[in-house]
Amino acid sequence: PLHGGRRKVQDPPVVHELKVSLEEIFHGCTKRMRITRRRLNPDGRTMRTEDKILNIVIKRGWKEGTKITFPKEGDETPENIPADIAFVLKDKGHPLFKRDGSNIIYTAKIGLKEALCGCTVNIPTIENRAITLPCNDIIKPGTIKRLRGEGLPFPKNPSQRGDLIVEFQVRFPDRIPPQSREIIKQHLPQS
Amino acid sequence: PLHGGRRKVQDPPVVHELKVSLEEIFHGCTKRMRITRRRLNPDGRTMRTEDKILNIVIKRGWKEGTKITFPKEGDETPENIPADIAFVLKDKGHPLFKRDGSNIIYTAKIGLKEALCGCTVNIPTIENRAITLPCNDIIKPGTIKRLRGEGLPFPKNPSQRGDLIVEFQVRFPDRIPPQSREIIKQHLPQS
Repeated sequence: PLHGGRRKVQDPPVVHELKVSLEEIFHGCTKRMRITRRRLNPDGRTMRTEDKILNIVIKRGWKEGTKITFPKEGDETPENIPADIAFVLKDKGHPLFKRDGSNIIYTAKIGLKEALCGCTVNIPTIENRAITLPCNDIIKPGTIKRLRGEGLPFPKNPSQRGDLIVEFQVRFPDRIPPQSREIIKQHLPQS
Repeated sequence: PLHGGRRKVQDPPVVHELKVSLEEIFHGCTKRMRITRRRLNPDGRTMRTEDKILNIVIKRGWKEGTKITFPKEGDETPENIPADIAFVLKDKGHPLFKRDGSNIIYTAKIGLKEALCGCTVNIPTIENRAITLPCNDIIKPGTIKRLRGEGLPFPKNPSQRGDLIVEFQVRFPDRIPPQSREIIKQHLPQS
């Protein structure tokens, strides 16, 4: 009853950031986190310190900010209800890709000659394949091509996937020899 | 004294947004704002409504967010101290320029041929002049050139001015005829 004995109140939740790579999000994974916590002994007054492993199951395609809660895994004292322990997903940086929801963004850097005269670009994927992307039309800076279904699994329907979005950057030469410059001037259409 | 008579409290300030153009900021200006307010009659009990013109002096180069306060110009009642009326500067959009502190940003759009083979670009200024900017080196997309002293006056020292920052955008052609494409391919250096 409320009156008489002391009423136990739960400590506020303890929230940790959990960094995950794009590959872990793509495949799904289990992260083992060791926590140290105080537990009440059977006498109800003294406490011990113990370690525990929490297995955090991260499903395919989960978004940044997803929260996984382990109820009452915090410190226990005679007076409290142990806090919930929560982990909030945070994307790790990736050397090749950025994430945009269930899409993956890749920046392809090509030279001006390739951009104007056509080329074939190899696009890496999150599965470590390379997709061959023929570019016959002129690639303007900021051009975007979309490789459907090569992104991350949708969290609510992991058999379907977002897209791999290729953004093109065009490298210009630092200089052009005067003779070539004159010829290019004659042959490049006005724009 | 605090006890005995009623103690008058001032109403919270009334804050208005005041939109100003870049030209007004450049030259400085006075804005006339008509306000309607209630004033107490000499009997100390009845009130009248009157119009008043507030002259808001905007000095050269003032930044967005600058606040001009007119003390106690709000409604007056037997019980209150009239509110202060304040105006906060807010930049109006401009068809050619953006503002960045005391600098002005202008985006110059040039064709790829001009970017590669050289050109002269006319840059408009806030004073309605045009500055001739010769571009002999290759202009890469995102190239920035700085015209010193062609920006806005510094608010604390209006005889000195910020810069006009020219950001280049390069328009690409939509297509190049196959013969020209072949020639360009031969003469454009790798990048």
